[in-house]
Order: sequence, then structure tokens, then C-alpha cells
Amino acid sequence: MIVVMKSGAKKSEIQSVLKKIKEIGLKPHVSAGIERTIIGIIGDERLFKKEQFSMLSGVENVIPVLKPYKLASRDFKKTTTVVNVNGVNIGGNNLVTIAGPCSVETKEQLLKTAHIVKKAGAQLLRGGAYKPRTSPYAFQGLGKDGLKILAAARKETGLGIVTEVMESQDAELVAEYADMIQVGARNMQNTKLLRTLGKIKKPILLKRNFSATLNEFLMSAEYLLSGGNENVVLCERGIRTFVEYTRNTFDLNVIPVVKQLSHLPIIADPSHATGRQDIVIPMSRAAIAAGADGLIIEVHTNPAEAFSDGDQSITPSMLEQLMSEVQAVAHAVGREM
Amino acid sequence: MIVVMKSGAKKSEIQSVLKKIKEIGLKPHVSAGIERTIIGIIGDERLFKKEQFSMLSGVENVIPVLKPYKLASRDFKKTTTVVNVNGVNIGGNNLVTIAGPCSVETKEQLLKTAHIVKKAGAQLLRGGAYKPRTSPYAFQGLGKDGLKILAAARKETGLGIVTEVMESQDAELVAEYADMIQVGARNMQNTKLLRTLGKIKKPILLKRNFSATLNEFLMSAEYLLSGGNENVVLCERGIRTFVEYTRNTFDLNVIPVVKQLSHLPIIADPSHATGRQDIVIPMSRAAIAAGADGLIIEVHTNPAEAFSDGDQSITPSMLEQLMSEVQAVAHAVGREM
Amino acid sequence: MIVVMKSGAKKSEIQSVLKKIKEIGLKPHVSAGIERTIIGIIGDERLFKKEQFSMLSGVENVIPVLKPYKLASRDFKKTTTVVNVNGVNIGGNNLVTIAGPCSVETKEQLLKTAHIVKKAGAQLLRGGAYKPRTSPYAFQGLGKDGLKILAAARKETGLGIVTEVMESQDAELVAEYADMIQVGARNMQNTKLLRTLGKIKKPILLKRNFSATLNEFLMSAEYLLSGGNENVVLCERGIRTFVEYTRNTFDLNVIPVVKQLSHLPIIADPSHATGRQDIVIPMSRAAIAAGADGLIIEVHTNPAEAFSDGDQSITPSMLEQLMSEVQAVAHAVGREM
Amino acid sequence: MIVVMKSGAKKSEIQSVLKKIKEIGLKPHVSAGIERTIIGIIGDERLFKKEQFSMLSGVENVIPVLKPYKLASRDFKKTTTVVNVNGVNIGGNNLVTIAGPCSVETKEQLLKTAHIVKKAGAQLLRGGAYKPRTSPYAFQGLGKDGLKILAAARKETGLGIVTEVMESQDAELVAEYADMIQVGARNMQNTKLLRTLGKIKKPILLKRNFSATLNEFLMSAEYLLSGGNENVVLCERGIRTFVEYTRNTFDLNVIPVVKQLSHLPIIADPSHATGRQDIVIPMSRAAIAAGADGLIIEVHTNPAEAFSDGDQSITPSMLEQLMSEVQAVAHAVGREM
Repeated sequence: MIVVMKSGAKKSEIQSVLKKIKEIGLKPHVSAGIERTIIGIIGDERLFKKEQFSMLSGVENVIPVLKPYKLASRDFKKTTTVVNVNGVNIGGNNLVTIAGPCSVETKEQLLKTAHIVKKAGAQLLRGGAYKPRTSPYAFQGLGKDGLKILAAARKETGLGIVTEVMESQDAELVAEYADMIQVGARNMQNTKLLRTLGKIKKPILLKRNFSATLNEFLMSAEYLLSGGNENVVLCERGIRTFVEYTRNTFDLNVIPVVKQLSHLPIIADPSHATGRQDIVIPMSRAAIAAGADGLIIEVHTNPAEAFSDGDQSITPSMLEQLMSEVQAVAHAVGREM
Repeated sequence: MIVVMKSGAKKSEIQSVLKKIKEIGLKPHVSAGIERTIIGIIGDERLFKKEQFSMLSGVENVIPVLKPYKLASRDFKKTTTVVNVNGVNIGGNNLVTIAGPCSVETKEQLLKTAHIVKKAGAQLLRGGAYKPRTSPYAFQGLGKDGLKILAAARKETGLGIVTEVMESQDAELVAEYADMIQVGARNMQNTKLLRTLGKIKKPILLKRNFSATLNEFLMSAEYLLSGGNENVVLCERGIRTFVEYTRNTFDLNVIPVVKQLSHLPIIADPSHATGRQDIVIPMSRAAIAAGADGLIIEVHTNPAEAFSDGDQSITPSMLEQLMSEVQAVAHAVGREM
Repeated sequence: MIVVMKSGAKKSEIQSVLKKIKEIGLKPHVSAGIERTIIGIIGDERLFKKEQFSMLSGVENVIPVLKPYKLASRDFKKTTTVVNVNGVNIGGNNLVTIAGPCSVETKEQLLKTAHIVKKAGAQLLRGGAYKPRTSPYAFQGLGKDGLKILAAARKETGLGIVTEVMESQDAELVAEYADMIQVGARNMQNTKLLRTLGKIKKPILLKRNFSATLNEFLMSAEYLLSGGNENVVLCERGIRTFVEYTRNTFDLNVIPVVKQLSHLPIIADPSHATGRQDIVIPMSRAAIAAGADGLIIEVHTNPAEAFSDGDQSITPSMLEQLMSEVQAVAHAVGREM
Repeated sequence: MIVVMKSGAKKSEIQSVLKKIKEIGLKPHVSAGIERTIIGIIGDERLFKKEQFSMLSGVENVIPVLKPYKLASRDFKKTTTVVNVNGVNIGGNNLVTIAGPCSVETKEQLLKTAHIVKKAGAQLLRGGAYKPRTSPYAFQGLGKDGLKILAAARKETGLGIVTEVMESQDAELVAEYADMIQVGARNMQNTKLLRTLGKIKKPILLKRNFSATLNEFLMSAEYLLSGGNENVVLCERGIRTFVEYTRNTFDLNVIPVVKQLSHLPIIADPSHATGRQDIVIPMSRAAIAAGADGLIIEVHTNPAEAFSDGDQSITPSMLEQLMSEVQAVAHAVGREM
């Protein structure tokens, strides 16, 4: 942590800062510049609060030097984490594709889609049983019945199941059925849910909130990791910006940056990020080219009649085209698929 | 809903749209323009999905005409709602001030602060027992013990209690202690929590999420209202933008806009919105001048040592100054305080 | 400037940084922390480039300590600047109101409006002769003829004239007619224009660009000040965010922050910021309550037929109401109007 | 254009809207819904102003149906435009790479870089002679001397020259030297510059402003096209968002969307968009995978000592790596390079 004193700070004000640093048991390091004095605080800056200094008289600014996350950082663990989901590795040289409908609607629909997903070459099946919807009047998911349908689809196709949990009290139930538990964007900072999932030994797909900074995103991963669950896969799914032609702005830049800062795998969700069926394929190619470890894609046998998110769901034939186009890009960047 | 056909859409494509409209039991209204044909759909557009048309061949765009919320709209209820919290009216001519620490830390601290808050003229006491924190290593709140301390403070001062609930399973417990239950910004779209609180008859303080559009904000209120709870107070607490000098961007513009569109009262939280102690007072004045029905303010006896949010907490003497300055502005805009 | 070394940086890498600092003629100050070494650079950080260090091997981050602007900062000049425009002071205890149409349309329209503006109590007349329009098919302003009409209005009413210049080659011409020259939001970083206006001795109204950070805004002022023109008034006119109910997001928070960091006066433009006639009045009140030194307001005798910006122009009777409501707030915050 | 009446609008209010529509010489089309009446206006909506209706009594909203741009739209011209720059086609099956330093610094530096750029396989040379800088104290470019150095580099290497113009009065001079004239992000809405360049027959590289919506971006192209210059290449270079780990947010989503809406080619600038040397390569791959027609890349022989933008400039050896990696992706998406 670096304390920047105001230009013209009094000697006594500098003394107060030094006294405070020593009180906490840390070591100050004073640099008296021409315009300002700056004071480095040596020691673990996670153990005290910025405000203990920022509010002292004569202090202009307090600048953190360390990253707030530790277990999620590549400094802590140099090798990339590989997460095994029902026999499918995420984070290694092979790319993963997770596909399926936004919501589990009926058993028939899901089984049909599961076969399509499998045939297209995707390795995991997605489908929501609990749905966070903007409108109280919209379809809210089938709940436990949906989980059972997902399990039936796994039985029939062998595809591992990825599904969302929305509250800590449902975590155990969802964990019984799912191979990978999704934390949705709206729940990225639901700390109680994160704590609960930290204690469950199922892989977690942690989606970035629309307005999450990178520190916030990785701190949510830190909740899971510090709780004891190391099987965390990150997912970029769009940020909220002024842009009007996509539902959110798919921020592919985060992918190479996360690769530098963290050892966790990261996949991309072009369906939710763009909200547009018609650009899901090019943006899937772009995500892989940027270095993503895989994709999660919404597919529906009849998007116009989907219970939710029809606008962004691709058709089965588009999924086949997507798989083939993405595979070409994967090979171009030295990945298998 | 208005269906805009592509320039050069075929007759058969237009026919398909018309057929679909009739299938659903609605009435189409065709306007053949020079460049494009547009088709108005007459009937309740909440009963079908945009995608049922947007995905049809030849359709360029589908434009909703109605607002997605109903019970929260001023069209539905012309008179402004007044919510009674422990004898204090929110939404009438009198402004409300809710003040207190970010977190309940100790009984001593809270009681001391409660007396300060009362003396300064605020009518309700805030304090968090359950705290949503970015870091798993930060103080997470005292939980039920915190609720008990809040109840003790009410007993001693008579001030009604405003405190946050983070999960549906804690709702009943919090409702036992609180006079007004806060839904935090991170939980604005926690639909299970909203459904649970819709059935509880305690007033709700619904905070706007950092990245919520106005429709999303009012749709979250709609969850509460459609569940049967009419005692909803909205709260603006900053949106996430590119701006770097405030923690969030305090969006006062939403206040006069909400007043037009909804009958619900709206208060403002300059502490969280700005994250800066040093501008809480001017921005409080501005919020009242913009038409807010009240303020929620973080105050701490020693901000530098606060367990959370010290940077934005004002001191007791600043609270007194704030109350006096805000009162002058309140009178200037014809409100009592 | 502070150079933060990577965790595990080699001794030789640290040595290279120290060598570089000394080469430039500055003094390094090393603090060897537990996880990282940080190196303070003492001396004027405006004289070298961040990249000279950020690209060295083993460097994680380079953090500037000083603000990039100097002449615009309150460190440089403690007393608030007061700018005199045709006898009207901006920045003192008295608030200024600048009002008028978006565009100068006809002589008759402008003279009529000028009388309305004067009668309502505004002190300066605005009106665009050069208009930056999004569409090439929209009205682009009357140019020099517009300037002449503005001069005629000044002659008849005595009101000083505020009008925009869009290119450096028009600066002298506009300066002949105007009492205050406006730099529009789209030109805030037109450096050639800023350099030219720095040499002209007319007061400048510098509007903040939609996406300008505070540093960028004040650096544009620095262009003017460093060129020799000290008569600079800043203007907040909205930033671009995800928000959909206002044209831009009127960021009143910048006002108290600018007051701390800079000695320059700052006024607010609720008309352009909100783009909504129906909330101009409450947001004008809010701007003054936040501490703005004045307002610039679009008024039109018939907004529906305005050549530009009709949606945000208020009517003459609304201007009278605005002046009276704002005056009450001004007195509440200890300002005259 | 569609006029949505308020719920409960009076008959007389509807009559006023109809009267107005007929006055302008257009045809109204009334749809009386259950909750609201909507009125379609048939005819060219570019010929009247939204405000002529939005301000009428009883009107809730006016929704434009047509896109504001015409010449830039794919409706107007079905085939993709191919722009020839010094013998290099932009917009066809072959991808273009434009590379070079941010600023022209010295003749020696530029010639050296030009040879590197050519050897790496890039087809056009970029370099700024006029530089828009945030700080008045920063290097502002060599001006005409810089143009001469660029011309010398073309003579020696045969590479066409891409360089920026900042003001309309410099347009002719820059056009004498450049093969393609760049309009920088800060000048995207400098309408006088756009008008001037519309009359010059040199290819234009039009960069998207940080905060430009797609309509605004294409409307700036419309200025050029409507002026008579059809040789317009668009360029995505990042938008301003809350994100802190890249200088701007590189918005690759715009690429497939522009391809649908416009016939103009679009290239991508990962250097300015990300501001980070270390992610320029992956984001270049992603841009091509998303469908961009080419790249513009900053390269410097010694980024740490670059006069400007060193943080984002790649080294010559990185450029070679970039070319080889991008070529692989180009082939994967069926493009030549």
C-alpha cells in the first residue's frame, strides 16, 4: 500500500501516518519528493483497511499495490488448472463445448436437444431448471422436475450436465443432479451461495456479472477457492455498456488478461453476451481465437417458440456449422476440439 | 407490439406474420409504407413472446409498445404510494432520513450511533447484520446477533430499523426484527428473495443494481407488488460507468423519471453511490432538489476504523451539517423535513 | 511515479530500473516488501514517460502519483477563478444563467427569444451559428449570418452572447462576435482548436465530452490555460452510459469533485445532458444544490418546430418557472441569483 | 415513424396528431389497441422531425422505424464495397494489415520501421504526423515534416501511406502525401472535416469514437458518402466502458453487425482498443475470426522509448509472430492474407 500525502502536508501529518503504520505492526518507507511525500507500507495489505490511512489528515490518496485475490492468482499457482467435468477436461489443450437450451421445457424437448448436441460434437449439456427472469410473469423454470429431466438426458446420452443454482438452500439438491453447477451472472456476488458452493466438491461454472470488474470477478472465484472448492471455471458473458446492437458487450479482451493473472480456465458465452442468434457463430470463432478454453452455447429446436431467450438460441443446423467453423479456428490457434 | 418488416419483404412473409398474429388470437393492423411494411399487433403484448415474431422470415425488428411492468406503473395507480415504516411516512410531503453505520459492529457502537442519529433528526436507523462483501476475507456481518443489537437500539431510541436480507431463507428472521427490509443492489434480481418478500407484509427498501436499466428496476418492484406486498420504496445508489472519481455514478436523473412512470416513492443513497465522504453533503442536497423522497446515509463515530465502507461514512458532526443543509433545500422545493 | 516490481522480480531487473531512473537524472527510493519491491521515483513525473519503465523486464505496474494537469489544479491556484463575460461574473457567489435556443434560426426568432430570456432574468444569451449534427441531412447552422443575428440581439437587449466554434479557422471570426466562445463536447479534445483559443483573450465555455474522464476534461482546460487564456469555465453536459431514459447521464457528482481539484468555475447543462424537456427543471435545481456556478438552458418559443434539439428545449413559461425554482434552491445553498 | 399515444389519450389529441401528419403531406395509419392507440406515419421519416410529434399533447413516445443512414446501408447497396489503397484492396477476400509507429519521430526511425513492416508482410504503413494528445505538454507530431518522411518511406518501400488529418484546413496537404487519410476517433463527429473529406477522392479510414453508437458511426460515414467519397473503410478501436484492464473495450461484436447493416469494409485496431502490447496478438486473431477485413497495428523498434503510445506498440519480432498467427486464423475463416 502506498500513502500519497497532499502537496504541502505538514510534518505532524506525516508523523501521524508513520505512527499509525507502526501501531499496526508494519514498516513505513518514506520518500520525500519535490511536490509530495509518499510513504510505502511494507507488509500484508490484506490485513488492514485503506480507510485507516485515507481518512487521516494530510493524506491525498492511498494506492493498493497487491491484488486483492490470492488463491485465484497465477502468482499463487503457476500451472493452469484443469477441471474435470464428467470425464471432460476444461482448461487443457482440448476445448470444451457446452450446449443446450436456455430452459428445460419438457422431457421430450430436452432429450431431442441432447441428442442433437451430442451428434454435433459438444461434450456437455446445458439447461436451466431454475431461471432468474426479469419479469415475474415469465416462465421461471421447472425446478426439481427440470433436474430430473436433465438426469434422464445424461442417462440416455452420457453427456455431463451443467445447470444453474440460484440459492444456497438449493445447492445440495442441484449438486445431486448436476455434473457442473452454474453460478449465474446475477448471482456472481451472492456471497452466501458462493460460500455454500465452496464446500461442495462439484465443479463450478462462475459467470461474470454484467458490471463486474476483473477484481470483483476473481474475488468471487476466491470465495469458492478459499472455501475449499478448486474446480472453478470462469465464464465471460458480456458486460453492460452504452452499446445498443447487442444485449451486452461481449468482452473478449478479458480472456487473455485472465490467462495472465489467474490459473483458472475461462470459457465464453456468446449467446447471452450478444443476445443475437445471427452473430453467435462469428463471435464463437472470435472467442476461441482470443484464447478461450471453450464455449457455452444456447441451442433450441425451434427458437421462436423457446420458453426463454429464443432471440439468442441457434438452431441445430447452426450448431453443426458453429462446431465446424470453430474447430477450424481451434486448430489454427493450436488447440484440439 | 409493432412488427417492422424488412425492406423488400415478400408478400408471403407478410402473410406468415399475419397468420401467426391471428393464431395467437390477436388482431393485426397493416401499414404498407414506401420503404417498409409495418404491422401493429393489437392486444396484450405481455401474453406472447417477441421471439415468436422476430425470428420469422422477412422480419427486421419487433418493437414493444407497452411497458413490461404494470402494478408498479403510474398508469395503474395514479396516486403516489406512501409507505409507513414504524410510524414514519415515506412518499408524502415529509422527507425521510435513514442513517446509521454500514455494519452493526458492537452493541456499544450501535447504541452510541443510534443516539447520534436521533439527535441529528433522522427518523430511521440503518445498520447491516448481513453484509455482501467483495472479499471473502472481509468482515461479513454479525448475523442474528446484529439483528438483536438493532432491536435493542430501537427499544432505547424508538427509531425504526432498516436492515438488509441476503437470502430468502433469512427473510422471516430479518422480518421479525426489522421495520423495513432492505434488498441490496447485488440482490435486486434475486427473484427467489423477491418472491419471498412479496409475501411478507413488511416495507421493502429496494435498491437499484449498479447496472439495472429502469425497466429492470421497476420489474423487480413488480415481483414484490405482484406477490402482494405494496409497501415498496425504491432507492437509487449509483450505476457503474467509466467514471473513476466516484465509486459509482450517482444517477439523480432517475428520480424525476421514476416519479413520472411509477407511483412508488424513491429515496437516494449518496454514501454508496459516490463512495466519498467528502461529497456526501452536496450530493444529498442535490438528491432532494431533484425530488427524492428522502435519503439513506452512512454515519460512523470513527470512519477510519469502521469495519466496512469507512471511506464513505460521514462523522456525527457532518451528519448534523447535512441535516441542516438538506432541510434548507427541502424547504426551497416545498417539502417538509 | 511508483514502479511496482513483479513478485519474484530478479535483482538484475531491479537494478535495471534503478539505472534507468538515474539516467533520466531522477532519484529512486526502494522499498523491499514481503511480496513485492516497489520503487518510488522522486522528481517531476511529467518529464518522462510511464512506458520507459512499464516495459522493462520484471515490472508489473507503474503508478503515477501526480496529477497530469498543473495550471488547472487548485494546488497551483488556491482561489477560485472568476470569469467576467460582458460584465457578468461566473464563479463568484452569484450564479449565472445562460439561456437561448439550440440554433439561431431566424432574426425574428432570436430577437423574440432574447427578450424572453432577459425578462426571465437570465444574464447571457446562447445560440448556435455553427452546429455539429449527427446527420449530414440535418440543419447545420447559419454560420456567419447567425453570428450577425446574435450581435443584433446583444445590441437590442444588452445580453452577452455565448456561441460555439467548431474549427480553429473560424475562431477569430467567432471571437469578433461572441462574448464567450463555447467548445462543444465533440470538440473537447480538438487540440488545434484548443491551442488557437488559448491565444485568444475571450472567455471560453469548455464542455465535457460524453466519454471524458476527469483527467481528460481538466487536461483540455490545461491546453487553454497553458496557451495563455485564463478565462475558462467548465461545463458538465452528460456522459454516455448504459442508461436509456435520458440522452446522456447528467453526472452532477463531477461538480463537487471539480471544486476540490480545480480553481475553475463549473456550470451545468441539463438540457443536453438529459435530452428531456420534462426533467430540465428538477435537474437544474439539483445542479445548483450540488454546487454548480450556473446553468446553460435551451429555450424555444415553439420546441416542436425547433430546427434542432426540440425534445430538450423548454418553453418561455417553463423558463420563468425554472428561474423561480432555481432561485429558491440557490438561496438555500447560500448563493445569489 | 410510429406515434404511440398515452393510455387514455383524448380523441381530440389523436385528431391533432392526424392533422399534423396530413399537414406535412404524409399518410397516417391508426391502430386503436386495448391500452393505447398507435399511429403509423407512412412516408420518408427523414423529412420531418420526431419533435413535431413527441411534443404534442397526449403523445407518449415516437419510435423511428427507418435507419437514419441511407448511402451507408446494405439496403442501398447490396455488394460489399472494396476500397483500393495504393493497389491494395480492402474489403475483398484478402485481408489487409496496416502497421507502423504511432507517431513519425525521425526519418531514420520511420524508414527502419517501414522495412520491418514490409518484411513482416504488412501492405500499408501507418504513422502519425499530426497527433491528438490528451496533454498539451506531450509530443504533438512533426506536421508537414512528418508527411515528407512518410512519402520518403513509400518511395523506398513501395508501401502505401495511412496517416491522420485533424482539421479541414490540413486536408488538402495531407491528401497530397497520403494514400489513405485517417479520421481519428476524436474527430469522428468533426462534421466540417467530414464534409471536406467527402469532396476529396482519397480513401478514408474512419475510426469509431470511444462513445459512438452504431448509428452515429454510420452517420459519420454517411457524411463522407453523401459528399461524394465512396472510398470509406470503417475501423473499430475500442469503446469506453467501466472496464479497467484495457484502455478501452475492444468491441469485436460490431464487426459482424456492421457486415449485416452496411456494405462498407471494417478493420480493427487492437493496439488503441486494448492499450496493451501483451494482448495485441490474441485480440488480432479474434478480430479476424470475428470477420474483420484487416488490422491496423502499432509497431515500434523500441516501444519503451516511443514518443507516444509505447505501452501498446509491439516489437518487430512480435509483429512477425502476429502475422503468422493471424494468417492461420485467416485461412481457418476462408480469407487470404
